[in-house]
Amino acid sequence: MSKNIVWHETNVTKEKRILLKKHKSYVLWFTGLSGSGKSTLANALESKLYELGHHTYLLDGDNIRHGLNKDLGFDKDSRVENIRRIGEVAKLFVDSGSIVLTAFISPFITDRQIVRSLVQENEFIEIFVDTPLVVCEQRDPKGLYKKVRDGELKNFTGVDIEYEKPLNPEIYIENSQTSIDENIQIILTYLKQKDLIK
Amino acid sequence: MSKNIVWHETNVTKEKRILLKKHKSYVLWFTGLSGSGKSTLANALESKLYELGHHTYLLDGDNIRHGLNKDLGFDKDSRVENIRRIGEVAKLFVDSGSIVLTAFISPFITDRQIVRSLVQENEFIEIFVDTPLVVCEQRDPKGLYKKVRDGELKNFTGVDIEYEKPLNPEIYIENSQTSIDENIQIILTYLKQKDLIK
Repeated sequence: MSKNIVWHETNVTKEKRILLKKHKSYVLWFTGLSGSGKSTLANALESKLYELGHHTYLLDGDNIRHGLNKDLGFDKDSRVENIRRIGEVAKLFVDSGSIVLTAFISPFITDRQIVRSLVQENEFIEIFVDTPLVVCEQRDPKGLYKKVRDGELKNFTGVDIEYEKPLNPEIYIENSQTSIDENIQIILTYLKQKDLIK
Repeated sequence: MSKNIVWHETNVTKEKRILLKKHKSYVLWFTGLSGSGKSTLANALESKLYELGHHTYLLDGDNIRHGLNKDLGFDKDSRVENIRRIGEVAKLFVDSGSIVLTAFISPFITDRQIVRSLVQENEFIEIFVDTPLVVCEQRDPKGLYKKVRDGELKNFTGVDIEYEKPLNPEIYIENSQTSIDENIQIILTYLKQKDLIK
């Protein structure tokens, strides 16, 4: 029994994992309309962070909606539960010492606030990708806005459901005005200022 | 638009994350009765892997039941959903390039089989911690067996619900006969043979 207690004292902690990875761990939470460019920007940023030797992971529709959250629909309750679970998984990744990027519309202030409250104050960085609805509709990378206009898709954020803009995001990206490179630079500058990257 | 496509081509993949971490990623799935010593062993192994410079994360009751799965009870359906979600999260950690250890009773063969099928064939290592019920009851580290005997706790694995032993686990630990050090050595030997650790 005393042997068990000794082992428990040597548990691997978040602090130890951070030491191994040589950088802080936190959530980069991208939020914005469908077609705003969240995923493209998150992917580009992850590539840049990887080049700089950081341990990252990206949560997005591809790896969440077909896996952990495949039991959820798109009604209000399901959308809330969707974001809750993503927040809890993001917290686990922060605890594991990684930088986790998330790219989900996450339209409700309350839900984003709940995720923020799961981690420490300096571990949640909200990145508001602010692209005008008209631009998102023109891009329509997944053809979803067309489906909405054709009546094939309901409860769509920005059309039927309001997107609640972040009131005070850590990083603000006006995505119709600037290039991906410029936007990445804005984020990297913030992360450097806060001593969050090497 | 062409710029976006270029960015997508440089996505950070599982292979790239594995390159950065310099070891393979996989699940070490500990299964066994309550009090069998799963958590103690998983913790001890994680410490050892950390010492050897591996990037690990441990999923257990402490970080799952109070977070991601706090909406779940202990009825049959909830227990199945509990393991399903843990499996999906484990898959995400494998995709992130980490070695993920899990310590849950996970009493049903079908559920463990589902988790196994989520990852590649060589990425799921089932570790059966086989401790006789009578020994688990004597240890009773959380006082749960006493509660069961006093009628305060129902549906308890090994007492009311059958624990379905793994038929062909990758690693078999007879935990009443050997010390923690010896058991860790058994696991490390297996991982070395399979070229899964540095």
